[in-house]
Amino acid sequence: MNETTLVVTGAHGFLGRYTARCLAQYGYTVKGIGHGKWDENEWRNWGLSAWQETDLTIETLRMHAQAPYAIVHCAGGGSVGYAAAEPYEDFQRTVYSTACVLEYIRRFTPATRFIYPSSASVYGRADSFPIGEESRIAPISIYGMHKRMAEELAVSSARRFAISTAVVRFFSLYGCELRKQLLWDACRKLTTGDYSFGGTGKEIRDWLHVEDAADLLRAAIEHADTYCPIVNGGSGMGVTVHDALALVSQCLSSAGDPPSFSGGHRPGDPDCYIADIHKAQQWEWRAKKEWREGIAEYVAWWRQEISTYGN
Amino acid sequence: MNETTLVVTGAHGFLGRYTARCLAQYGYTVKGIGHGKWDENEWRNWGLSAWQETDLTIETLRMHAQAPYAIVHCAGGGSVGYAAAEPYEDFQRTVYSTACVLEYIRRFTPATRFIYPSSASVYGRADSFPIGEESRIAPISIYGMHKRMAEELAVSSARRFAISTAVVRFFSLYGCELRKQLLWDACRKLTTGDYSFGGTGKEIRDWLHVEDAADLLRAAIEHADTYCPIVNGGSGMGVTVHDALALVSQCLSSAGDPPSFSGGHRPGDPDCYIADIHKAQQWEWRAKKEWREGIAEYVAWWRQEISTYGN
Repeated sequence: MNETTLVVTGAHGFLGRYTARCLAQYGYTVKGIGHGKWDENEWRNWGLSAWQETDLTIETLRMHAQAPYAIVHCAGGGSVGYAAAEPYEDFQRTVYSTACVLEYIRRFTPATRFIYPSSASVYGRADSFPIGEESRIAPISIYGMHKRMAEELAVSSARRFAISTAVVRFFSLYGCELRKQLLWDACRKLTTGDYSFGGTGKEIRDWLHVEDAADLLRAAIEHADTYCPIVNGGSGMGVTVHDALALVSQCLSSAGDPPSFSGGHRPGDPDCYIADIHKAQQWEWRAKKEWREGIAEYVAWWRQEISTYGN
Repeated sequence: MNETTLVVTGAHGFLGRYTARCLAQYGYTVKGIGHGKWDENEWRNWGLSAWQETDLTIETLRMHAQAPYAIVHCAGGGSVGYAAAEPYEDFQRTVYSTACVLEYIRRFTPATRFIYPSSASVYGRADSFPIGEESRIAPISIYGMHKRMAEELAVSSARRFAISTAVVRFFSLYGCELRKQLLWDACRKLTTGDYSFGGTGKEIRDWLHVEDAADLLRAAIEHADTYCPIVNGGSGMGVTVHDALALVSQCLSSAGDPPSFSGGHRPGDPDCYIADIHKAQQWEWRAKKEWREGIAEYVAWWRQEISTYGN
């Protein structure tokens, strides 16, 4: 086993690329594998020393992963809405890919650590806050159900086959490069003069900047163990959707008209997510990016993007 | 949709073949699909009007299933021990195959009903008896974990895509043709004069004859719904392993030496399983075969088998 080499699956994705860069900055040699077309310049810029565009199977992992110190499995479905529309595709991306990576490790490189970025969606509608890792697991979306299945595979591999694993349940990740979800959609709508949003605006989210998320996955590599520690990845602080979008609006225009909300409930969209982050803090990890700063940076990046590529 | 045609996946297997025969006796045209080589004489004798030996994929289902009234998904892993040794293979047989069948139904024949034979192993170590369907789900084997995932896919398909589904959690199935597990092993050991068994003998099992199980799956077709009813499939009565094996011993020889037990605990083997079967009884289903009669028949079949094929 090569103790300085890591594999990041799904390294072309939002979390994957930041994770690759973070790990490279820590001195690891990082190989990427998964789907997505990008130039060597670009993937090297994101910290990868190799990139293999391929399906994730036991065979492709044997060919390209080569017994790394750890595999950070960032590949997987990335959208609650997509999973609801294409459940089988999301199952394959999230659950089946995890089964493949774990089987590769079990059979060919059992000392390799397995790090799984899961999601707070596994909690569904929590009834007390902040949400601790021992809270009831009751996903209300197909996305969350599949994430939970992938977690169970990781826990089972740890306990039964002594594979060192760790799971991080991320709350609302955001940051530059995220070309979907609430902030992206808000930038597009607000610039066209459309201030109306679904939901009540009172939904509470725990925003975590993707650089802090990547750093937590880095810490998870160190803390992976055969009992599969599971930690929440959030800031520990709740911000309403209204407050987040009001800030986006202010950043976009000095007028900064406030967003308005239809008041309806969006299916699969719980009212409140705030993470209890004591366990992650015990790993001596801290979120560094304050949400107002992160959102302001995001809006600035978005402006740059549309001035370069169009809206 | 053809209301008189059914598909049984895994129809070559133990539960699958009895299910095919039972459904054919009810007047359905039954097509089988899955793995296993047998002669046309043989599969016709088990009630099938067609047999397709193939992997279960969305494509093979499109080709061979042809919008049946219901698919009874008997394909899947069939052994706790095998699943522990080959978790990825069991995942594919049990979880992935279920995802494929449900996706085939969702996309191509959404009025087709989906019946899933699950297992009491999803309960793990229950703490009160009899075990009702609302008991805590906490599988302690990989086999049970995968069965649970398959159940979740069925429930999710029902609730989100209005597919009529039903799940039956079978307890200890047995019957002629079962060439593995406790009774088979016991026949082999006892006839060689080996009366020693693992475990304490005090483990309690709820034995259900496979013909009664098949008839419960037949009832499940009628009761499948978009809320996915889940019912236990058992006799409602507990019999110790000691008593079951003592009867096997008596049936094998008039001397009928009693079995002895090492007293150790077998991993993944809960102490007690007794089904609460009120829900299945509400379907006007009744188990007809008493366990003593069923075991005597099994031993008689086993004698016939070894006199024909050797031990």
